[in-house]
Amino acid sequence: MVRELLLAHGNGGEETWTIIKDLFLKYLDDPILSKLEDAAVVPLEGHIAVTTDAFTVSPIFFRGGDIGKLAVCGTVNDLAAMGARPMYMTVSFILEEGMSLEDLETVVRSMGDTARSLGVRVVAGDTKVVPKGTADGVFIVSTGIGRVVYPGLSSHNVRDGDIIIVTGTIGDHGACILAAREGLDFETHLESDCAPLWDMVEALLKEGVEIHAMRDPTRGGLSAVLHEWARASGVSFVVDEQSVPVREEVRGLCEFLGLEPYHLACEGRMVLAVAEESAERVLEILRQHPLGTNAAVIGRAQKGKPQVLLRTAYGTHRFLEPPMGELLPRIC
Amino acid sequence: MVRELLLAHGNGGEETWTIIKDLFLKYLDDPILSKLEDAAVVPLEGHIAVTTDAFTVSPIFFRGGDIGKLAVCGTVNDLAAMGARPMYMTVSFILEEGMSLEDLETVVRSMGDTARSLGVRVVAGDTKVVPKGTADGVFIVSTGIGRVVYPGLSSHNVRDGDIIIVTGTIGDHGACILAAREGLDFETHLESDCAPLWDMVEALLKEGVEIHAMRDPTRGGLSAVLHEWARASGVSFVVDEQSVPVREEVRGLCEFLGLEPYHLACEGRMVLAVAEESAERVLEILRQHPLGTNAAVIGRAQKGKPQVLLRTAYGTHRFLEPPMGELLPRIC
Repeated sequence: MVRELLLAHGNGGEETWTIIKDLFLKYLDDPILSKLEDAAVVPLEGHIAVTTDAFTVSPIFFRGGDIGKLAVCGTVNDLAAMGARPMYMTVSFILEEGMSLEDLETVVRSMGDTARSLGVRVVAGDTKVVPKGTADGVFIVSTGIGRVVYPGLSSHNVRDGDIIIVTGTIGDHGACILAAREGLDFETHLESDCAPLWDMVEALLKEGVEIHAMRDPTRGGLSAVLHEWARASGVSFVVDEQSVPVREEVRGLCEFLGLEPYHLACEGRMVLAVAEESAERVLEILRQHPLGTNAAVIGRAQKGKPQVLLRTAYGTHRFLEPPMGELLPRIC
Repeated sequence: MVRELLLAHGNGGEETWTIIKDLFLKYLDDPILSKLEDAAVVPLEGHIAVTTDAFTVSPIFFRGGDIGKLAVCGTVNDLAAMGARPMYMTVSFILEEGMSLEDLETVVRSMGDTARSLGVRVVAGDTKVVPKGTADGVFIVSTGIGRVVYPGLSSHNVRDGDIIIVTGTIGDHGACILAAREGLDFETHLESDCAPLWDMVEALLKEGVEIHAMRDPTRGGLSAVLHEWARASGVSFVVDEQSVPVREEVRGLCEFLGLEPYHLACEGRMVLAVAEESAERVLEILRQHPLGTNAAVIGRAQKGKPQVLLRTAYGTHRFLEPPMGELLPRIC
């Protein structure tokens, strides 16, 4: 029995058919996907959100998830950030010759389970196998399609006076991957926050609260989101360091490695810019959701030069730099 | 000046912003893409075709195209094969640290030029940079979205008596890549057929001819298409070897390397299964189009066991095997 992926699995012929039938269709079962046409045909109507992301995370298995679950969560969360209900996904796999078929099966199963639990249908896919040494195990690119049910969310829409809220502790995913990479993961309880956020976001949007912008702080972390918003909306932010929820283990790892948790990726959190009068209600709704129990107000947007200021525990201020330099490749 | 891609270009922060602004947005200019939201929001209505493909071709530059043009053509052609007018694309880049920025620029420009010439808008994108040695130069995954204007095309829809037509010579792309890979390309005039087919397909569909199935014979070539149709529609095919248009150079390379042109990829051809009464008209329309001058009837579908028979020049028959084994990795 073959236990490793062969170049032949990517030939577009018999062996490709075998792996599609016995592996991909087994776990990503969908009547549209199973037709194996050149393109999937789906009914759509209205304002449709479309997002694409490449996932190259290393290691592909980590505490709290794997690259398959991560691809679905990352895709769904990008749609959710635009107020869009996730409906369909496409997935492309770039696989390295020789990778373990058991690992691939675990990844695809995890992807299928996560998508199914969200009612998201995987309708189209592609698989390429490249010779050993020209990729590293498995890369996944997923594209998500959803219907915008709450229009108007935009990084260009943050306003003077908006309250900044995070839905939970920051940096968990980044710290978990970093620890695994540095061989520190057996000494800690670090776990990725990898989770799909549409359910929580929908609970919020249904309530008619006034949210101006939403973004999941993945690569580049909270810092990247705030700097992007500052640039796009022409505002500055003041963040109260003591209000930002950070797990003890994450803080410890950051101190040990000389990093800031603000730059570490999350995969199950949202950052929100909320009209002041809605902030309390937003917090209340978030905290009722299992994924939002640690939600917190962390700062405020104000008129001014695009920059991010941190108010320290001592009441002084310092600049939060945008993510720069190599940071952590293959975090997601 | 930096001439090579750095890991920092993938940090999600300042350097990523630079490369997005100075390279990607420069050549893939689009008002929706330029918003740089988590997802693009586009109006859509009706039956929408969605397709995704990973492009890992090596070498990335070849006679007749490059990986950027190929990604657009491959995506558009998959939509066209379902009778869908291409509208939007998303593109994800997985890039290897150290790759030439000039090469990347050439690829992205070529992608932008091809998409623009077709009126296809690139609305969302992603870029990941992975450490040297964990990918090979550039991989592109594109997802295409189009509106089905001619419904009902399906690989499950080929019927007894259908006439099989190819829109041009087969195997040009595969032969070109193969020759480049084997270092034979300086001795030949092999050139990829890489081209976008929607324009020609639309000219055909507008005429109200009866087409049952259409597919672009990429990986696995004509053989893969016919075997897939045989399996999906429960028919067999008889193909007249002498009718299949194959360039002399392609035939020569195949003989030299012991290959069949039927297994070699095309990137600018369609295979059609057409109702007998429409066949002549289809051929006529195709031949009026610059990309269809070599269009030819090559065979016929008939009731029977799913298989593909070739009628040789001597009037005997032989089986055309489905693509099997390693064939040619990284052909597209």
